[in-house]
Amino acid sequence: MKICIIGANGMVGKKLVKKILSSDLYQTQINKICLFDINFNQTKDNLHLTHIKGNIEDLTQIKKLASERFDIIFHLAAIVSGEAEENFKKGWDVNLFSMWKLLEALKTEHFKSSKTYIPKLIFTSSIAVFGEPFPEKIDDEFLCSPQTSYGAQKASAELLISDFSRKGFINGMSLRLPTICVRPGLPNKAASGFFSNIIREPLNGQKAYLPVDKSVRHWHASPRAAAGFLMHAALMDTSLLENRKSLNLPGVSCTVEEQIEALRSVAGQKVVDLIIFKKDENIEKMVAGWPKDFFPKRALELGFIAENNFEEIINIHIADELE
Amino acid sequence: MKICIIGANGMVGKKLVKKILSSDLYQTQINKICLFDINFNQTKDNLHLTHIKGNIEDLTQIKKLASERFDIIFHLAAIVSGEAEENFKKGWDVNLFSMWKLLEALKTEHFKSSKTYIPKLIFTSSIAVFGEPFPEKIDDEFLCSPQTSYGAQKASAELLISDFSRKGFINGMSLRLPTICVRPGLPNKAASGFFSNIIREPLNGQKAYLPVDKSVRHWHASPRAAAGFLMHAALMDTSLLENRKSLNLPGVSCTVEEQIEALRSVAGQKVVDLIIFKKDENIEKMVAGWPKDFFPKRALELGFIAENNFEEIINIHIADELE
Repeated sequence: MKICIIGANGMVGKKLVKKILSSDLYQTQINKICLFDINFNQTKDNLHLTHIKGNIEDLTQIKKLASERFDIIFHLAAIVSGEAEENFKKGWDVNLFSMWKLLEALKTEHFKSSKTYIPKLIFTSSIAVFGEPFPEKIDDEFLCSPQTSYGAQKASAELLISDFSRKGFINGMSLRLPTICVRPGLPNKAASGFFSNIIREPLNGQKAYLPVDKSVRHWHASPRAAAGFLMHAALMDTSLLENRKSLNLPGVSCTVEEQIEALRSVAGQKVVDLIIFKKDENIEKMVAGWPKDFFPKRALELGFIAENNFEEIINIHIADELE
Repeated sequence: MKICIIGANGMVGKKLVKKILSSDLYQTQINKICLFDINFNQTKDNLHLTHIKGNIEDLTQIKKLASERFDIIFHLAAIVSGEAEENFKKGWDVNLFSMWKLLEALKTEHFKSSKTYIPKLIFTSSIAVFGEPFPEKIDDEFLCSPQTSYGAQKASAELLISDFSRKGFINGMSLRLPTICVRPGLPNKAASGFFSNIIREPLNGQKAYLPVDKSVRHWHASPRAAAGFLMHAALMDTSLLENRKSLNLPGVSCTVEEQIEALRSVAGQKVVDLIIFKKDENIEKMVAGWPKDFFPKRALELGFIAENNFEEIINIHIADELE
């Protein structure tokens, strides 16, 4: 079995690579893993592992990648939310039009192989496909009405994947990831970054700023859960998806106050005291339009699993990143 | 006021042109109407009316059109359902990627005008954006899950229009038209054609074949209603759409049996006798996946009006086409 991970050097990509390399699957069935990204921290290849530095907008590279006929392709690469909002054209070019190029290249291989090649494509979409006004819990039949370019691009890419799959050119699915929390590494400029910052920084003995009211509710899953979703998707029988190739995934719905309570119970008051409230009206406004809670019935029935509460999410961060 | 109709030579386009030319608006506010299509039956221009033969895939033509800075652009051009299914790439090229080209060209004019030019764009989408399984009535928050390439292309184009509108580059909206019935003219090869054929042909003294069971239920509106939707959209205050730029429109939900009953009551048994049942399993299968009924609350509240029953639809056909 040959696997390709596009966007392998991102936060979720790295977790997935680690998970695959330590899996039974790797020992028994996988004979090639290709990691594709625009940049890598390290590029040490071995017999089974290849790193390719490349750009998903480059048609020649995409065609070459497709010609390898991977059995499973994880597509995690994206221009993130903030950048897609700032740089409108770049967002659409990378997040939608490069997806078209990849799908067309895979379709070409499908026909070249006399229709025997039908790769499994697993795409990381996002809860950003949803927009206000929301019901109390978003169910599996709620409309996509994105209120960011990033969300609109993810929703459009989902439609492409679904149609290429319906036609039998690929076997695709889109996973709408919750906000991944606690993100490891340094604080980044994503508007959602504070959900992670207020946990990660205090656990490191650093101050962290909270830009929104504690009553803000949001939908989270750990990086470990994200890698788990992707592995589960790779192994599942996709015929169970029937007509609908996009899935809302499970997660933990909690308020910032509940996040902080969980931090107090795991790490104590001194750690919590490092969180400093510093209102940011811009962030507050953006966050107000984000999904708060889901009832992801289909994904649960299909066996996707996330954490049960925010304490678990913190404990996973401590176990995976701090110990 | 300057108006452009892209796809003006199609069935709905012609109705719209007629409606505009006979409207008060035309007498008082409109000083230019440009009709754009790949072909025209007639191209008699006058002081206010221009016909442009062109291809919406041609970037040069699209840029030229955009540079005219029309106040209102109706976008009705499309590769239809059957052809988009047969010719996969052509469908996506015309129905999605040419929309991108137009929107980018309009965005360029927006910035050239120091952001003062914000055209109203009214796009004819379709109930083909929906896919099985359906609730009894599709409400305004039901997901798009198209089961044809045509539907996927319409849904993707809606996402583009919505995002360009959110950014303030255009003032766009998408109208999800019911199946238009009774289509005037000759029978065409669209799978949905029989809904019109079984009314139009018998009224002309011709036989018509019914390929599905009489229990099949579907969602209809007349060509007159379609032109009415477009005019209403042109005149309405689009700020009322808020975050959601796509609208399910009103229509008549009825079974084929109810269609036939209406025909009997309007035109008598002899006319009904010209309908011949001739099962077509392919059509039956496709039709089974189409929407049957809607509760289009938002559109009704916004003042969009369709017929109340199928008899009305038949009487409109008789009034507009046969007398």
